Amino acid sequence: MDRSKTYLVVGLGLLGGKYAQVLSGKGYRVLGIDCDPAAVQYALDRDYIAAGAAADFAPLLRQADRVIFALYPTALLRWVEQYGDLLRPGTLVTDVSGVKRGVVGPVQAALPAGVEFIASHPMAGRETSGIAHSAEVDFAPANFLITPTARNTQAAVDWCRALAQTLGFARISVLSPAEHDRMIGYVSQLCHAIAVCLMCASDNTELARYTGDSFRDLTRIARINDKMWAELFLWNKDNLIGEIDMFETALRALREKLAAGDREGLEEMFRLSTARRQAFDKKQQDAAPQP
Amino acid sequence: MDRSKTYLVVGLGLLGGKYAQVLSGKGYRVLGIDCDPAAVQYALDRDYIAAGAAADFAPLLRQADRVIFALYPTALLRWVEQYGDLLRPGTLVTDVSGVKRGVVGPVQAALPAGVEFIASHPMAGRETSGIAHSAEVDFAPANFLITPTARNTQAAVDWCRALAQTLGFARISVLSPAEHDRMIGYVSQLCHAIAVCLMCASDNTELARYTGDSFRDLTRIARINDKMWAELFLWNKDNLIGEIDMFETALRALREKLAAGDREGLEEMFRLSTARRQAFDKKQQDAAPQP
Repeated sequence: MDRSKTYLVVGLGLLGGKYAQVLSGKGYRVLGIDCDPAAVQYALDRDYIAAGAAADFAPLLRQADRVIFALYPTALLRWVEQYGDLLRPGTLVTDVSGVKRGVVGPVQAALPAGVEFIASHPMAGRETSGIAHSAEVDFAPANFLITPTARNTQAAVDWCRALAQTLGFARISVLSPAEHDRMIGYVSQLCHAIAVCLMCASDNTELARYTGDSFRDLTRIARINDKMWAELFLWNKDNLIGEIDMFETALRALREKLAAGDREGLEEMFRLSTARRQAFDKKQQDAAPQP
Repeated sequence: MDRSKTYLVVGLGLLGGKYAQVLSGKGYRVLGIDCDPAAVQYALDRDYIAAGAAADFAPLLRQADRVIFALYPTALLRWVEQYGDLLRPGTLVTDVSGVKRGVVGPVQAALPAGVEFIASHPMAGRETSGIAHSAEVDFAPANFLITPTARNTQAAVDWCRALAQTLGFARISVLSPAEHDRMIGYVSQLCHAIAVCLMCASDNTELARYTGDSFRDLTRIARINDKMWAELFLWNKDNLIGEIDMFETALRALREKLAAGDREGLEEMFRLSTARRQAFDKKQQDAAPQP
């Protein structure tokens, strides 16, 4: 990746902070913007960024050749509308958003001519948030997804892939915004919805002493950033509602077999779930990058 | 625990094999019974048992002072009806069943006078089964639950506790069969039902390459022993159906908020789930045995 370019990270939270840390650590010139002065100072103190600002962004924007938006989707759209015109022609821009259909088109349309937005999603979120937790993020085992549209050039896709490699992602995929959102609705959002509902269903905190690995695993992600996940769910609600409905149909089937004392029917569901889970493990091993 | 007594393990599977391995390793005299001659041979070859039988159980039963039934609930009930009369007065008996109400009363009623059944549940199951996986079982971090009834003596409860300590369990609790089954319906069975339904909901194996920690954690227990779990679910179906219904109510609430675009309502659920999950972590730390 071109070391003569200046990188600007907009949003110094968990992921923006990590991007800045890794890129600076590898010798790239990185600038940073955040509306919270403490986040900017944190990044400056640790040399995650060479310069930063919590207001009056124009001077930094004029220096940027490559921009990474590490904002929630709604904030990203607002930011681009407000400051997008300050970006120079020739600038390449990407993001970190966990939903794509509602973001990619509007951002591409809002940016000035000559500024290209190539969307991407580093699937490396955690239960924690904020730049103070950035150092804990591990990109190596995570997926990096690039979601180009017809308006993107191959050069921008190639840059985005090089960025992911520089950041340390070993698993990089290219798919459409629609494919991305459908996939994320099942693989991530449905899982978070289930974990949240398991905790919300009843107040069973007096049972904490009896919980084992199963319960802990299923509810780990019930500790959730409320603002961000409400956004992610709402931007993808058609897909997520579809997944919830399919899941609920399966749950009702299991409940009916249980109520009817249908042992064979239950065993059949258990064999199907076991076979599919084994296939997942197998496919995941096949897809893993070779050392 | 009294080293002059002879221990008999009935059912040399994952847990029965582990009980035999640990007790023999600590110098106790252990005998073993299994209808599969290969399991008996496996246990003999590794000195898990001093003697064993896959048929003609009477000679071993006549030697036993302490008996551990490591059978599925239905098999346990059948076994006690068929062979229970061969046990000598003074014998103490326990089990490993994951459900209690349907087992404890009938087994206590079926055993001859002077033979006392004190039920217990080592919560140390795994996705694997069979004695060949026994060595992988780790009792130290698991819960051991003793579920006495009015028919049990304090001496039997004390023996069962000593057995658990000898086996290496650090977390031992005493609760009623009804409390046990209600707790297990939420903490374990509902989680397994959800994991199974997540895999059964749709065939998304082509998404395996994109799955991250969330999905893997939620579906790990979807690899499930079909025969055993059908039994456990059916023996506790009233509790499990109640838990499924409460969970489904929460899921419907989330779906409605999503469909209505109710951002504040979603954030409220996320905050509740986060607070409850944090309380679980806290309570679990408080309940953990001190090193």
